[in-house]
Amino acid sequence: MLTIGVDIGGTKVAAGVVDQDGQILDKVKYPTPSNDPAGLADVVARAVDDLRSRQPEQACHAVGVGVAGFVDEDRATVQVAVNLGLRDEPLKERVQAKVGLPVVIENDANAAAWAEARFGAGRGSAHLVCVTLGTGIGGGLVLDGALFRGRYGVAAEIGHYRMVPHGRRCACGNHGCWEQYASGRALVAEGQDLARTDPKAGERMLKLADGDVEQVSGHVITQAALEGDGAALECFRIVGEWAGLGLADLAAILDPECFVLGGGVSDAGSILLDPVMTSFARHVSGRPGRRLAEVRLAELGGEAGIVGAGDLARH
Amino acid sequence: MLTIGVDIGGTKVAAGVVDQDGQILDKVKYPTPSNDPAGLADVVARAVDDLRSRQPEQACHAVGVGVAGFVDEDRATVQVAVNLGLRDEPLKERVQAKVGLPVVIENDANAAAWAEARFGAGRGSAHLVCVTLGTGIGGGLVLDGALFRGRYGVAAEIGHYRMVPHGRRCACGNHGCWEQYASGRALVAEGQDLARTDPKAGERMLKLADGDVEQVSGHVITQAALEGDGAALECFRIVGEWAGLGLADLAAILDPECFVLGGGVSDAGSILLDPVMTSFARHVSGRPGRRLAEVRLAELGGEAGIVGAGDLARH
Amino acid sequence: MLTIGVDIGGTKVAAGVVDQDGQILDKVKYPTPSNDPAGLADVVARAVDDLRSRQPEQACHAVGVGVAGFVDEDRATVQVAVNLGLRDEPLKERVQAKVGLPVVIENDANAAAWAEARFGAGRGSAHLVCVTLGTGIGGGLVLDGALFRGRYGVAAEIGHYRMVPHGRRCACGNHGCWEQYASGRALVAEGQDLARTDPKAGERMLKLADGDVEQVSGHVITQAALEGDGAALECFRIVGEWAGLGLADLAAILDPECFVLGGGVSDAGSILLDPVMTSFARHVSGRPGRRLAEVRLAELGGEAGIVGAGDLARH
Amino acid sequence: MLTIGVDIGGTKVAAGVVDQDGQILDKVKYPTPSNDPAGLADVVARAVDDLRSRQPEQACHAVGVGVAGFVDEDRATVQVAVNLGLRDEPLKERVQAKVGLPVVIENDANAAAWAEARFGAGRGSAHLVCVTLGTGIGGGLVLDGALFRGRYGVAAEIGHYRMVPHGRRCACGNHGCWEQYASGRALVAEGQDLARTDPKAGERMLKLADGDVEQVSGHVITQAALEGDGAALECFRIVGEWAGLGLADLAAILDPECFVLGGGVSDAGSILLDPVMTSFARHVSGRPGRRLAEVRLAELGGEAGIVGAGDLARH
Repeated sequence: MLTIGVDIGGTKVAAGVVDQDGQILDKVKYPTPSNDPAGLADVVARAVDDLRSRQPEQACHAVGVGVAGFVDEDRATVQVAVNLGLRDEPLKERVQAKVGLPVVIENDANAAAWAEARFGAGRGSAHLVCVTLGTGIGGGLVLDGALFRGRYGVAAEIGHYRMVPHGRRCACGNHGCWEQYASGRALVAEGQDLARTDPKAGERMLKLADGDVEQVSGHVITQAALEGDGAALECFRIVGEWAGLGLADLAAILDPECFVLGGGVSDAGSILLDPVMTSFARHVSGRPGRRLAEVRLAELGGEAGIVGAGDLARH
Repeated sequence: MLTIGVDIGGTKVAAGVVDQDGQILDKVKYPTPSNDPAGLADVVARAVDDLRSRQPEQACHAVGVGVAGFVDEDRATVQVAVNLGLRDEPLKERVQAKVGLPVVIENDANAAAWAEARFGAGRGSAHLVCVTLGTGIGGGLVLDGALFRGRYGVAAEIGHYRMVPHGRRCACGNHGCWEQYASGRALVAEGQDLARTDPKAGERMLKLADGDVEQVSGHVITQAALEGDGAALECFRIVGEWAGLGLADLAAILDPECFVLGGGVSDAGSILLDPVMTSFARHVSGRPGRRLAEVRLAELGGEAGIVGAGDLARH
Repeated sequence: MLTIGVDIGGTKVAAGVVDQDGQILDKVKYPTPSNDPAGLADVVARAVDDLRSRQPEQACHAVGVGVAGFVDEDRATVQVAVNLGLRDEPLKERVQAKVGLPVVIENDANAAAWAEARFGAGRGSAHLVCVTLGTGIGGGLVLDGALFRGRYGVAAEIGHYRMVPHGRRCACGNHGCWEQYASGRALVAEGQDLARTDPKAGERMLKLADGDVEQVSGHVITQAALEGDGAALECFRIVGEWAGLGLADLAAILDPECFVLGGGVSDAGSILLDPVMTSFARHVSGRPGRRLAEVRLAELGGEAGIVGAGDLARH
Repeated sequence: MLTIGVDIGGTKVAAGVVDQDGQILDKVKYPTPSNDPAGLADVVARAVDDLRSRQPEQACHAVGVGVAGFVDEDRATVQVAVNLGLRDEPLKERVQAKVGLPVVIENDANAAAWAEARFGAGRGSAHLVCVTLGTGIGGGLVLDGALFRGRYGVAAEIGHYRMVPHGRRCACGNHGCWEQYASGRALVAEGQDLARTDPKAGERMLKLADGDVEQVSGHVITQAALEGDGAALECFRIVGEWAGLGLADLAAILDPECFVLGGGVSDAGSILLDPVMTSFARHVSGRPGRRLAEVRLAELGGEAGIVGAGDLARH
């Protein structure tokens, strides 16, 4: 049985035909219409129709849509998706009316977590926390083998649990949210701060950024770190330490079997993973003695959202 | 069908016959033998035998034992219970051999949480976080209607998630654990600090403590606060603010339907609850717009452990 | 003997004739030319000439210029004044060439501190810390009866000592600077946060701000607080607590006889002063037993800069 | 002209004859009587008499006494010296009556700072902050070429300015004092924590400590670090980072020409100094552009107290 998974991002809508092994058989991509809820449903429907037209008739049985926002516990309504301009948007209804298939709406990080749990780095773990270190931090919880949504559908907003009281201001209105310390944006902030205040130490990163502090990006820092640049490695060490502190907190609360780290920051591989694991092991409670959750890198990359949304539509 | 619930505390072993409505039909209490694992199992068995002897034959079908410590996910072994001197203790096996009934071992805060979820303040909530503000902070999670134990049985150690990086040292070896800020011990520390550094402001508390800063206890602070003493109320405001910050973090991660606050500190009622709710509402992410979890006081008091352990043995 | 004091602010250049008792006998004001170092010296010279032309010939003997920026220890060069677009600006030389009188350049907060020490709230104190709670936090130190400039002229940048490790980002490039917590900008941030996340509690402030969160200004919060509005008072309590924490740190380091609080935030009088003093007394080290520095409100208001610059030119 | 410098420590009273070049010509040592103010004055007097008896008659003109405690601004009375059991002790009067020479009492860290400023690492600096990283953190300020005592004699209690709000509890009654993060005690805490929670990483330190975590001392950590042990170096890195953060704060407030680091922790030399300087440079405000204070290791070691007390008696 096939389903269609859709991943609505800030710039593009990506969709794919997903089989029961989590393989993507076909894929399409469209630009995301901005601040246009009706148009967004149109684009999703178009993507679904395109994909279906290229499959045998009636091969696709359901549609799962992942979206970067708060999704109601009924998996139908987007409470709010700031970057997409959605608020109390009945997205399931709109899309279902157009495509004539059962539709479920999911938070995109939940969808990605589900994909990793079913087909990726978390295969075989009944208790898993997926941490997506992208621009911010997204999260998904798989508990007792099922995606955990909480009472109102907004569980796993782990990027906004408070790491530092009175800490850095977050776009969410709070201060000290984890994503201010351990996300891609945090990595860039560390790199730019370092390059600005200590241009000599930051020389390599600055060179890769054409001498412009503002151009010190995640890619620049990652490249410099892969080359062995001390300053760039220090940026990863700092971000990795904060990331590990967060895992320690989540372990105290949830005692998962494993953590799966995804998102752009995790592209750095062991350069990120090593300081994360050191910090996690150092800061988790119950040491020594406690059996530690494993920390793994995500395996499905940017396609996790499509795969997870598609698979969730199946169940 | 009846079961027997046992609550092993640092000073006493309390046990009761629990019916299917969570009522305790009969109860016994013994001193806890210290640092004597075999003796502990004897006491538990004696309590069970006493209670059974006073019920109709074969009325009691199972035994649930709550213990303040890390309990394995198999609900059989106590990994470590510092205050009881237990380490890798096969408590289920020992007790079962003596009493000849099915036995389950549970963390005591888990047991209490389950009792509140089934018969107390959390009745009807499928997603509930129970926060026991005692000397430290204990926790129990009921998710999707079931007690959540995590992969290795030690989920919900919420007292040891980190509130303040580089914060107050905790007996667990870490720094900044939540229970250093929002427990009974934290309340006492605030009261004693205040009385020490500003004896005039702390006058009423000091008087209730016979003029001895060291005697400023949770009872003293609570009594002074109930009388309206400004300094004591300030202590509750500070502790309540930290407690509310913690609830905000847990809400970001778990999105529960309600929080149940128990433990000795919660005896102060609205004096604690008001600052907790103010802080929680102020600090939770997703405001305004987010549907907030309710914050309720526990209803079952000190008997929650017996009731919960007994009921868990039933399932 | 008369001197001329000049206060170069971001929007206006104010100058006055200052007598030996710190009285301003005459005063002029011009707009500050933006990003025009030469033009700035012209405006200063014009102000000086205007004032001199209205005094008896040769009545004015020297010129003191206060400027919001880092001033070299030679009191001649402005190392950097971000808001004025100055960098390594030989301001003394430029002005002196035009006015034909001895000129000294001072940091504006230093000048204000000196004025308060000589003629204002700090009269009679040999050891004084002046804290100007404006948009940010400025500071001036009078130690052993003399203005203290440090080795390179940039002592007393107290707004940028770190209050919270990993705290709120500051325009200076660091995180957690005191002025992110206890300045006018911090007060506004508290007020806006509160109005945004809890519009009901922030009702009065919102009304004074025509319903627009962005219009919740220092004036709005102060007015609401003076009316007794609970939310506005809470904003002052929070800011006052951070301010008091800072005074406690400065007391540990400098053991002054008094603190003088000036700047716009201090216009709220006891609404600010009360929580500041409570926090200071609660958090200063060496309690009980230690003789506490007094905390006073500044007396000279916005003219402190002119008076101080003029008086420093005399010495 | 010769003077006598006395350094009253918790376990011994050391005294020496000090010449005008800061050389110690003769030296004696006695055990410190515990909790015996009168006996303490006797011991000081005996030390002075011993030293004088071995010098030409009338060679010694004055006595300076350094003591670990709060000393009044009149340099006569010890307000409180917890470890010596002194409170409001008129030490100057007592000693003067016995020895018949002019006596001044000083805080011991002040005396050491003065010695470094006059004859040690701070020679030639008019503005200097001396930071003694011993069990706790002591401090001394030399500003405009003179020892700075503050209004009530207790300036430079830099170990008790607050590094972390709500941070680690300090013996002073406050939380988050700098000395909880950057002192010898903090170093030991890091080492023991690491050895306890990660015995494998802490293997070398544990071996040097005969396998006993409690025996992981400053000496052990220093030795392991000198051997290149990663875990021990990490301890110094952490402590050095906190130390550098403190220097950055002191630089923002005082803009000194140099910092002099003394005390036992500084025996590790560049192993401490390197992370301190990295952290200082990274965190100080006004970067880039600001001229940075130098950070130097103290030169006079344990004799700084005697030399400084003796020299202060001369002036």
